[in-house]
Amino acid sequence: MKTIDLNCDMGESFGAYNLGNDEQILKYISSANVACGFHAGDPAVMDRTVKLAIKYGVSIGAHPGLPDLVGFGRRKMDVSPEEVYQMVVYQTGALKAFVQVHGGQLRHVKPHGALYHMAAANQELAEAIAEAIAHLDSSLILYGLSGSELVKAGDRKGLLTAREAFADRTYQHDGTLTPRTSPNAMIPSGQEAIHQAMKLVMENRVQAVNGDIIEVQVDTICLHGDREHAITFAEKIHHTFLKEGVRIKAIK
Amino acid sequence: MKTIDLNCDMGESFGAYNLGNDEQILKYISSANVACGFHAGDPAVMDRTVKLAIKYGVSIGAHPGLPDLVGFGRRKMDVSPEEVYQMVVYQTGALKAFVQVHGGQLRHVKPHGALYHMAAANQELAEAIAEAIAHLDSSLILYGLSGSELVKAGDRKGLLTAREAFADRTYQHDGTLTPRTSPNAMIPSGQEAIHQAMKLVMENRVQAVNGDIIEVQVDTICLHGDREHAITFAEKIHHTFLKEGVRIKAIK
Amino acid sequence: MKTIDLNCDMGESFGAYNLGNDEQILKYISSANVACGFHAGDPAVMDRTVKLAIKYGVSIGAHPGLPDLVGFGRRKMDVSPEEVYQMVVYQTGALKAFVQVHGGQLRHVKPHGALYHMAAANQELAEAIAEAIAHLDSSLILYGLSGSELVKAGDRKGLLTAREAFADRTYQHDGTLTPRTSPNAMIPSGQEAIHQAMKLVMENRVQAVNGDIIEVQVDTICLHGDREHAITFAEKIHHTFLKEGVRIKAIK
Amino acid sequence: MKTIDLNCDMGESFGAYNLGNDEQILKYISSANVACGFHAGDPAVMDRTVKLAIKYGVSIGAHPGLPDLVGFGRRKMDVSPEEVYQMVVYQTGALKAFVQVHGGQLRHVKPHGALYHMAAANQELAEAIAEAIAHLDSSLILYGLSGSELVKAGDRKGLLTAREAFADRTYQHDGTLTPRTSPNAMIPSGQEAIHQAMKLVMENRVQAVNGDIIEVQVDTICLHGDREHAITFAEKIHHTFLKEGVRIKAIK
Repeated sequence: MKTIDLNCDMGESFGAYNLGNDEQILKYISSANVACGFHAGDPAVMDRTVKLAIKYGVSIGAHPGLPDLVGFGRRKMDVSPEEVYQMVVYQTGALKAFVQVHGGQLRHVKPHGALYHMAAANQELAEAIAEAIAHLDSSLILYGLSGSELVKAGDRKGLLTAREAFADRTYQHDGTLTPRTSPNAMIPSGQEAIHQAMKLVMENRVQAVNGDIIEVQVDTICLHGDREHAITFAEKIHHTFLKEGVRIKAIK
Repeated sequence: MKTIDLNCDMGESFGAYNLGNDEQILKYISSANVACGFHAGDPAVMDRTVKLAIKYGVSIGAHPGLPDLVGFGRRKMDVSPEEVYQMVVYQTGALKAFVQVHGGQLRHVKPHGALYHMAAANQELAEAIAEAIAHLDSSLILYGLSGSELVKAGDRKGLLTAREAFADRTYQHDGTLTPRTSPNAMIPSGQEAIHQAMKLVMENRVQAVNGDIIEVQVDTICLHGDREHAITFAEKIHHTFLKEGVRIKAIK
Repeated sequence: MKTIDLNCDMGESFGAYNLGNDEQILKYISSANVACGFHAGDPAVMDRTVKLAIKYGVSIGAHPGLPDLVGFGRRKMDVSPEEVYQMVVYQTGALKAFVQVHGGQLRHVKPHGALYHMAAANQELAEAIAEAIAHLDSSLILYGLSGSELVKAGDRKGLLTAREAFADRTYQHDGTLTPRTSPNAMIPSGQEAIHQAMKLVMENRVQAVNGDIIEVQVDTICLHGDREHAITFAEKIHHTFLKEGVRIKAIK
Repeated sequence: MKTIDLNCDMGESFGAYNLGNDEQILKYISSANVACGFHAGDPAVMDRTVKLAIKYGVSIGAHPGLPDLVGFGRRKMDVSPEEVYQMVVYQTGALKAFVQVHGGQLRHVKPHGALYHMAAANQELAEAIAEAIAHLDSSLILYGLSGSELVKAGDRKGLLTAREAFADRTYQHDGTLTPRTSPNAMIPSGQEAIHQAMKLVMENRVQAVNGDIIEVQVDTICLHGDREHAITFAEKIHHTFLKEGVRIKAIK
């Protein structure tokens, strides 16, 4: 029987600003990546989100980002490996504290936005992230884009890694994601996104934007909680997996 | 033989901005309160400061503050007990992570500036801080102004508490510190500050600004690392204690 | 013929976070108070909002707040009159620049949230705000709670002032607003809020929460753009005024 | 008689953090570039710095930077031309307001750090800056690296431009500055820096790090106020220019 982890970024509200549909989405996923206050999230939001994830029995990860709240951590910054190491230690530690006060256990780390993409391509930054996690708690699972430098760095460090693929993002023929600044970065149709997710999980393949079929190893599929129809989509993909005999389960 | 803890706020630099003389001061103290990024400090500064404290064998504490970098955490804010709980969990967790990656152990928590003074007088805020620490790690020692609501809240929660007194701040007759906004808040003379510290430790007494001699229980004396002649003063107070047979030692 | 100004806080989105229904609300009001980046808003949001206000022919004001993004400027802070002067100069200047690049004219200043309420009660802070505006551009109109220290300070400085009243906030018998932390701070029923607004404009009276009828001079009525049914409410109050022969018009 | 403008970045303190020796340096320069709160500076610092510049009769410019306080605006960020336009409008407007309340006149704009270097090389970003200034106040002078895209964009927009050269930074053979991350970015010897400045002003030439003598047109020389011996250096370069018959004077 096939098993897949469904993860979603969460806790990306801030102060008076609400984003996403965390509680609704939590019903359909197995892992929550909780923002840590740099690109989104604040102590109150983290507290609330961790409590919710525990309530729904969803595995909790830290979701550290670049220190760029106004840019939502999506703008690349010229940060050094040392700075990346330090920002991952800081944010992961902060999130871990909320998990501890609520009696849960931090299970993984997934970098956010530009940090995720920079670490997918840049070996030095990837190693800085892997090292931060290895030093902090070597039982944490490192989530990274399947095939990326980040996953490779985690493997070299002896960390558990989760190879991630996306249901609703399009792929380039080299296995990277089409940048969000491109018009065709997202797959607007829920039907097609579910189709892509199924193909990824059942066949480890995806069709790139140039038409090529490429191979992608997948341990976890990322959903987006803040898109239109996000709840309906989460529900549908969840039920499609179950119907096809795929078990949705956090990585251990 | 008498024993006293000497503590100092540290890691209060930020980005390109340097503040304090951390490495010099570390030679003379037993406990370092490390800023956590809200009123001062950033991930790089925290990393560096924790490394230094470990190098000098100084006990490490978190020094959480209000989210007010431009005001250096010295301006009172109308925050709720819940917000205080959350900001202490967040900041203490972040600092603890740096201590962990460097193989050290977080030993205490001392709130900073306005948060310290608000928690000295306000029972609800004091309890929020004590609760955050109790939930996060009940072996952490809570530092608070001697006689304050914060120490009382820690005692009620079953935490180890450290009753703090100040060498270079003047006291009101009710045992509170003269606010920094008053002209006579600080004791400018190093000689007098050392005299006050000795009297506090040897007799548990201090002369208030109105002339009254008041009683103050003391487990730890706070130095300031960013004042003029801070290094000389730290060295002098350290040697005076040793000469008078007082052992300088972190609280266990 | 009676005339009233209808104003609404605007441009309170931030980065990826949307708040309010600015474009819809602009159709029904005569003055927009645009957030300036301290409690809400960012350069992109300010740019967009100013452009929209000009498009709809709505008078533009600066809406400076305390430097507390995570608290949305609603938490009182212990700031000095000098700091308040400086934060009003900074924010008003920043907003004025956007108005200038779009060929508009900045017409008024209305402090936000805690700054508004602090300046309503505290003469020194009120004078700091009035002085900042007088120094920067003495033709700007100062908006303040009717009867407040802020309006008095503006009057003393020789500024044009606009006495503000609220449709959907309840009043205390002393003419102050019930704090947002109280359960009955808001008037949930749109019908009652319109009734209160009409009574304020036609009779200069309002019923306080203790039942007293108190007198309130009114030049401008504040709507809230981020509440549920905000657009419907704005439309209704707009049409009710017109039907009753009240002209909706910015203050000159 | 030769004339040169001597400019220096100023007002780069923040809250409790002091940086630079603004008042001492102001005695020797003709133009001050005042930080605007994004990479450094805050409303209090801006207020104080503008007052000082007026006291010393020094021409005042805005010194806008990237929104990266912890990185002091020195880390490149992937910002769009539109975002750059908006951040320049915001910051220049804020600084202009302080100049106005003190009865002065804003004379120029010089981008800071990474924004300066990005705009030197990237035409789109350069045009966004030039456009922001042209829209806001077309009498402002745009400072940019001599030969850069920024100066060209300003020229195309019809702005007055000032071609800047550096006394204490080394040059590459293509006329760009050696990046700060390189070990030989700075000229440590004051004597050599003065020599470079004189050669730049008298001959419009400088020796690049590869030994080539390259041509550099110069309207203004940049000093650094936060380096060791900054005051002595400013005094020396000032007196050397006077002795050699070069008049130090702001650009009109």
